[in-house]
Amino acid sequence: MTPHPLWLPAAATAHLRGRSIRVEGEHPLLQTVRAEATAAGMHPAEDGDVVIRPGAASTPDSFVLAVGDGNVTAEYADAAGALYAWFEIVRQGAAVFAGAGRRTCAPAHALRMIDHWDNVAVHPVMGQVERGYAGVSLFFDDGLLREDLSRVDRYARALASIGINRIAVNNVNVHEREVHLLTDDLPGIARIAAVFRRWGIRLHLSVSFATPLMLGDLDTADPLDDRVQEWWRATTTRVYEQIPDFGGYLVKADSEGQPGPFAYGRDHADGANMLARALASHDGLVHWRAFVYNHRQDWRDRTTDRARAAFDHFTPLDGRFDDNVIVQIKYGPMDFQAREPVSPVLFGMPHTRLGLELQITQEYTGQQRHAVYLGPQWAEILSFRPHGQTGSALAEGLGGGMAAVANVGDDPFWTGHPLAQANLYAYGRLAWNPRLDPAAILDEWVPLTFGDDPIVRSGIHAILDGSWAAYEAYTAPLGVGFMVTPGTHDGPSVDGYEYSPWGTYHFADRDGVGVDRTAATGTGFAAQYPEPWRSTYETLETVPDELLLFFHHVPYTHRLHSGKTVIQHIYDSHFDGVERVRQAMQTWEGLAGRIDPAVFERGRERFAAQLQSAIEWRDQITTYFARMSGVPDDQGRTYR
Amino acid sequence: MTPHPLWLPAAATAHLRGRSIRVEGEHPLLQTVRAEATAAGMHPAEDGDVVIRPGAASTPDSFVLAVGDGNVTAEYADAAGALYAWFEIVRQGAAVFAGAGRRTCAPAHALRMIDHWDNVAVHPVMGQVERGYAGVSLFFDDGLLREDLSRVDRYARALASIGINRIAVNNVNVHEREVHLLTDDLPGIARIAAVFRRWGIRLHLSVSFATPLMLGDLDTADPLDDRVQEWWRATTTRVYEQIPDFGGYLVKADSEGQPGPFAYGRDHADGANMLARALASHDGLVHWRAFVYNHRQDWRDRTTDRARAAFDHFTPLDGRFDDNVIVQIKYGPMDFQAREPVSPVLFGMPHTRLGLELQITQEYTGQQRHAVYLGPQWAEILSFRPHGQTGSALAEGLGGGMAAVANVGDDPFWTGHPLAQANLYAYGRLAWNPRLDPAAILDEWVPLTFGDDPIVRSGIHAILDGSWAAYEAYTAPLGVGFMVTPGTHDGPSVDGYEYSPWGTYHFADRDGVGVDRTAATGTGFAAQYPEPWRSTYETLETVPDELLLFFHHVPYTHRLHSGKTVIQHIYDSHFDGVERVRQAMQTWEGLAGRIDPAVFERGRERFAAQLQSAIEWRDQITTYFARMSGVPDDQGRTYR
Repeated sequence: MTPHPLWLPAAATAHLRGRSIRVEGEHPLLQTVRAEATAAGMHPAEDGDVVIRPGAASTPDSFVLAVGDGNVTAEYADAAGALYAWFEIVRQGAAVFAGAGRRTCAPAHALRMIDHWDNVAVHPVMGQVERGYAGVSLFFDDGLLREDLSRVDRYARALASIGINRIAVNNVNVHEREVHLLTDDLPGIARIAAVFRRWGIRLHLSVSFATPLMLGDLDTADPLDDRVQEWWRATTTRVYEQIPDFGGYLVKADSEGQPGPFAYGRDHADGANMLARALASHDGLVHWRAFVYNHRQDWRDRTTDRARAAFDHFTPLDGRFDDNVIVQIKYGPMDFQAREPVSPVLFGMPHTRLGLELQITQEYTGQQRHAVYLGPQWAEILSFRPHGQTGSALAEGLGGGMAAVANVGDDPFWTGHPLAQANLYAYGRLAWNPRLDPAAILDEWVPLTFGDDPIVRSGIHAILDGSWAAYEAYTAPLGVGFMVTPGTHDGPSVDGYEYSPWGTYHFADRDGVGVDRTAATGTGFAAQYPEPWRSTYETLETVPDELLLFFHHVPYTHRLHSGKTVIQHIYDSHFDGVERVRQAMQTWEGLAGRIDPAVFERGRERFAAQLQSAIEWRDQITTYFARMSGVPDDQGRTYR
Repeated sequence: MTPHPLWLPAAATAHLRGRSIRVEGEHPLLQTVRAEATAAGMHPAEDGDVVIRPGAASTPDSFVLAVGDGNVTAEYADAAGALYAWFEIVRQGAAVFAGAGRRTCAPAHALRMIDHWDNVAVHPVMGQVERGYAGVSLFFDDGLLREDLSRVDRYARALASIGINRIAVNNVNVHEREVHLLTDDLPGIARIAAVFRRWGIRLHLSVSFATPLMLGDLDTADPLDDRVQEWWRATTTRVYEQIPDFGGYLVKADSEGQPGPFAYGRDHADGANMLARALASHDGLVHWRAFVYNHRQDWRDRTTDRARAAFDHFTPLDGRFDDNVIVQIKYGPMDFQAREPVSPVLFGMPHTRLGLELQITQEYTGQQRHAVYLGPQWAEILSFRPHGQTGSALAEGLGGGMAAVANVGDDPFWTGHPLAQANLYAYGRLAWNPRLDPAAILDEWVPLTFGDDPIVRSGIHAILDGSWAAYEAYTAPLGVGFMVTPGTHDGPSVDGYEYSPWGTYHFADRDGVGVDRTAATGTGFAAQYPEPWRSTYETLETVPDELLLFFHHVPYTHRLHSGKTVIQHIYDSHFDGVERVRQAMQTWEGLAGRIDPAVFERGRERFAAQLQSAIEWRDQITTYFARMSGVPDDQGRTYR
């Protein structure tokens, strides 16, 4: 089966067919633009309908788009700016020729990255793609690097079209086989890098901190050991010999069993800087993940709080990281739950380049069997104002840009659920411009992907627009998180992680539920925030309902700002959430005959699975809390 | 490493060294006896200290042992009787020559079987040995039948020494690869059968009901289809051509996804009899398992009761099974829990040959990391009187004998935990004589295995004698069962199966816990028992404490016959159980230097793991119920 064209079907360039174009300048990326124009049915002309030329724009990747008299002129700052201008012209459709005016388009972040968690060898537990729900890797298959990279080329084009300019191609959990990507497999990696280069995307590798040990070259990986430093310098130089625009290293160190500097009594700055110095002369970066916590916690210990861990580990190191180190921080203090507060580390290290890490792959948000559009979640995070309404938004302080874990694989629809493509699209668009309205992004993505049928446009918009809120409603309540099946993280298991070493607890008992993270009586996590959030989260009167159980342990009869009790909210939101899935399913059914039958059928399968799963979530959660609390649902809907 | 000698070290025959023996008769098994005697250092003599000859005994496998004037004479009914007489003489040690008198030794059951759940190919989830905790299979390794069967020979000898005379060598869940054992692999199976034959043990195979389909020979497995019947007749004849004493087929049909006659609108009698007729002329048996239930139950459905299933499925078929069909029934109505009532199917089909199935492998009883001696459990089951104290014991009504799931593998100690050997030993002894006192069996096994040191004898006796009760105390309370981690069944997960399709629920809520299986208000399972048990179990006043939650849902404040409340019993038993593990561990430590260091070290590792696991059981169970019930432990020991 031909892979789905994502948001770049032939129809997406119909408005350009037969028109003329002139692309000025010499650069491989400009060749890419010219080839794109030819493929779109344009012809070169001295005085084109579209002119792309060097000019007014100045910041990297940017361009100025001037429209008038039916002509479009894009003046680019650099060749990447030309490429992005091209895709802007594609994206705007026929309307691009109709307007008049001039505007500068520049990305909010220089680094707009995708992280793949792809393994080369199929991992016995995690499979080929860790937390992948869309088939096997586009790069690797069953122990080998793929020979045929045509699918990678299509993927790179789609990423370029939404502004992605960095990609890490392998899993941050670097296993035995994958260590060799950095050495023996370099020729293959260079082939992959060449495909991405054509689309303005620089390739990064995830590396194990213990690589010199694992390859048997040294008996230590101590970052302060001369031999280790020299090993990384020499190895890195060899990488650049084959991949001159290599992006750098992504590292998960001293986290969930991965090796790191702690083994040698060194800290994260020692570790990250050692790698950074091997990369610096090559314009390479270290992305050093802040996802560090004790994953062997004793559940009996109510004082240790995983939510505190990244802040406690990293903020004392603020100012010690080299300039080419980015500390990459998950959006929340736990792990990609449907709802968490924004991690205070993201604004707790003013002297460090910080990068935001999001998860496009739906590990905790329905595993691409549930239609869940994450744009609104990400927009909310990016617009969070760490110092209150008068301060700037989070997105404005991210010197390290953004990265997100990929949701694609060799599935014909790329993402398992065809509607999950929207998340990949929205991620790219928000990384470019965090102020975009996620609903508007939908209205941009739907016609690009599905065409102009107004019923399809409004139907898919209706399905996706409130889908994150619906998912939140029928899963774990009020920010409590982690009521998932251990291991797979698929489907509900209320107590699945309650007596585990993973630090993810809800502490439900017959009287109440939630985690006391206040400074007054709890773990003190709330005090990691600056004002006004510290007080907002600390106080029951001000904590937002959706984060209540993240910060407080409350009785079931506690009243939310909404006026409902916690227990009645649990019942209502779960029954309501399932009804919203039913409506989405009906809306999809109404699109039969209006969209590609293969897409429709795949969607139909997924909605059936989503409904079944949502009902299971609803019934397990409400039954659990009905049994626990003894408080009946005021509409009598729960089981016992 | 040389495998452990089990209960047959050289020392076990020291009392026979230098003595004379005469073995009369001609039969391969008598050659086995002569070889054993030679290996024990005996020499043949016309007028031996030991004489084994045909004579007084009449029932199969039996012998009469006459002792006097320092001589021992065994008169056997058949060659198997001679073999068992030999091992009786070994087992009695030096004392055998000291006594005087004459007694007949005959097994209670003609069929004393071991069932292996060994796969040929490593199953992706279940591994090589399903529910195996002692390494890989003795027969198969990684997709192949083993060439070297010397270890199988040692195993067969050990089984013969405790009276085992039947063995099924492969898993009752017959996967793709294992279907071929019945056809392509027959030469290899015949080699394994030859090893067992030398020790009086007949080999059986587990077969899939869908074999003719799976091999691609037919398009149906309908038991009433002539072609299917003919296929099984021809296939079975080919088996007997290579294995003339082949024992027969063991079948798990229409159970947990295995195929069976239901697919063709036929019932279990149709299915079993079809196979039985293919086997009858060859003196072959069908063991047809009664472990049939709906494993896709909706947990919301409180009327369906898995405990009822086997009785509901099978008792209507009573009288319809051919004479060479044995309906093989797990000891309890659920699945090998540490505590269940005896299954009413075991005395609910008076016109059917019924076999009892036990589980030596410790799937639900500590997975051979916990030292748990199951002899007392089995003795209690065998001595259960289905019709009350004036009726006969269960063991007397088992026309189909006994079978038990093996606990051995290629581990140097055979059973992972060296003390788990006691269970294999006790099973054989109880299958021969169900009236044996399990504590006396221990006193027989310990010196055979560990020698005569009285501190070792009393120490290991102390460790094992109450170990089942201790395990019960620190795991799932009062007969409720199934609070284990889904899948592995290893360690606690109180709600792990509570919202699953497996039919294994405890229904704990803030007010109480347990399953109402009464006829009056529950599922009616209690009414499957004849009197007096029906009333005993039905009534709160008479139900035994240890089965309370199996039959009743009660408030936490319900008072047991012991005088304690249910909730305080949960607390006390768990804390007490862990203390008993600590004592056992200390006792083991006291044996350092007195037993084989390798055995000691392995035991030490296991006790450390057992203690850790027991503490986890204790803390998770008591915390769960403290949170649920809100009733404090009167000694203040629980977490919250």
